[in-house]
Amino acid sequence: MRLARRGAPGAEKPVVLEGDQAFDLTPLTTDIDGDFLESGGIERVREALAAGSLPVADIDGTRVGAPVARPSAVYCVGMNYAAHAAESGSAPPENLVLFMKAPNTVVGPFDDVQIPRSSSKTDWEVELAIVIGKRASYLDSREQSIDHIAGFTIANDLSERTWQLETSGGQWGKGKSAPGFSPLGPELVTPDEVDVSDLRLRSFVNGEPRQDSRTSDLIFDVPYIVWHLSQHLTLEPGDVIMTGTPEGVALSGRFPYLKAGDVVELDIEGLGSQKQVFA
Amino acid sequence: MRLARRGAPGAEKPVVLEGDQAFDLTPLTTDIDGDFLESGGIERVREALAAGSLPVADIDGTRVGAPVARPSAVYCVGMNYAAHAAESGSAPPENLVLFMKAPNTVVGPFDDVQIPRSSSKTDWEVELAIVIGKRASYLDSREQSIDHIAGFTIANDLSERTWQLETSGGQWGKGKSAPGFSPLGPELVTPDEVDVSDLRLRSFVNGEPRQDSRTSDLIFDVPYIVWHLSQHLTLEPGDVIMTGTPEGVALSGRFPYLKAGDVVELDIEGLGSQKQVFA
Repeated sequence: MRLARRGAPGAEKPVVLEGDQAFDLTPLTTDIDGDFLESGGIERVREALAAGSLPVADIDGTRVGAPVARPSAVYCVGMNYAAHAAESGSAPPENLVLFMKAPNTVVGPFDDVQIPRSSSKTDWEVELAIVIGKRASYLDSREQSIDHIAGFTIANDLSERTWQLETSGGQWGKGKSAPGFSPLGPELVTPDEVDVSDLRLRSFVNGEPRQDSRTSDLIFDVPYIVWHLSQHLTLEPGDVIMTGTPEGVALSGRFPYLKAGDVVELDIEGLGSQKQVFA
Repeated sequence: MRLARRGAPGAEKPVVLEGDQAFDLTPLTTDIDGDFLESGGIERVREALAAGSLPVADIDGTRVGAPVARPSAVYCVGMNYAAHAAESGSAPPENLVLFMKAPNTVVGPFDDVQIPRSSSKTDWEVELAIVIGKRASYLDSREQSIDHIAGFTIANDLSERTWQLETSGGQWGKGKSAPGFSPLGPELVTPDEVDVSDLRLRSFVNGEPRQDSRTSDLIFDVPYIVWHLSQHLTLEPGDVIMTGTPEGVALSGRFPYLKAGDVVELDIEGLGSQKQVFA
């Protein structure tokens, strides 16, 4: 299934998409959030769809919101593609590198993004994002991870490289948390719809190709990431994990950083696309 | 004023403390959270107290919860006391070092703390914590910071040093986010009650002194921290900022790491004390 949130910021309505049609989920839930996911909401949507009991939703022209509301945390895996580690001047990590973004950075996948004041190095990063469906703490094995995943979507893990790498003593979060720095969506795609082990993911700036890689190149794969994080912290339903970005970002020195008027497009096979105008 | 949350985890009730008495805030709000703070809740409490309209609350024997519910983010300033930077093997930072803890680590100040599975280096850190009262983005000056602060409390910024420093490629968050790793409280003390520019803060393990310093030794002070963060991200009402820890932690090599049965006590002048039993 493909779940989405449509409407103005803070007033998104939950829908499920089936082919060309959208069905209104408000008879089942006020929103797609941690409570909905933890309480078996996706199963309830599946049953209601099968029973034909959901009203058709008219979503033409509505804004696309992030497909999950108010994550309690946004976790990010760093340096998880070998070629990106190399372009950043690092060796591939032996251990999973974890950092965090402020959860209020999450916005819709087509929202305009304001380049932060005094930023000179705003950079894009296309990433496969995991949305947690069920609390995960001390999972026994990687095989259990899938039971705790609600689905997948696309993230743009935007970064201000001066703040990330030059003015925070090596801790990355300061350059990852500016307003609007986590475009997420367009859809929450359930694991039965998509095999995320080998998906092409790409980014473009003003129509020119930048990143172009496959999730099969992830150093730490999705089951490992969820299992590993659960050994160190408790993942909550609705939490977002960005799994890392492949090479092809401005930090490499091969491309300019973003400036007002630039258009960034991201896509991941099977998960749709994003497009942001920078201002 | 001194606000607190009393009751079982997830079922805390808001109160205001006056001398030996506690008054029930449930006629005014269901909880002390971002919505309450942003909507002028503290002023409403002040007026209700002055009018004598609040019922007395019987809090004898009730658990002390964290004094703010569900922060959207927990920000931490690293290496903000010169002597602690030195004991950690670092020079004092030229720029404010920012990292984050998972918000679900926040627990009550007297709750037992489970040492994480496979942890060998669990360490304490007493810190002055700021609670944000009003959204802060791009503040014009340090003088504006106080208008965005709801109050202050004590935090124990617990850390697993192997995960923080050895197995996350230098990014600290992995070692900062284990369940229960942010004891917070006991009270949210409003800025008119306490001058935080020069408070003694201490920690003890099994009754033996560990940290003993003053907030006047902070490299980046409270007004600077709030102003600086607001240039890089948006602070939300209810968010918590831990301002850094002074020297005297196990990482220094002078004291053993925590083990089951250890008792950690923290205090900050004017803000009360915390006590946790480790298991």
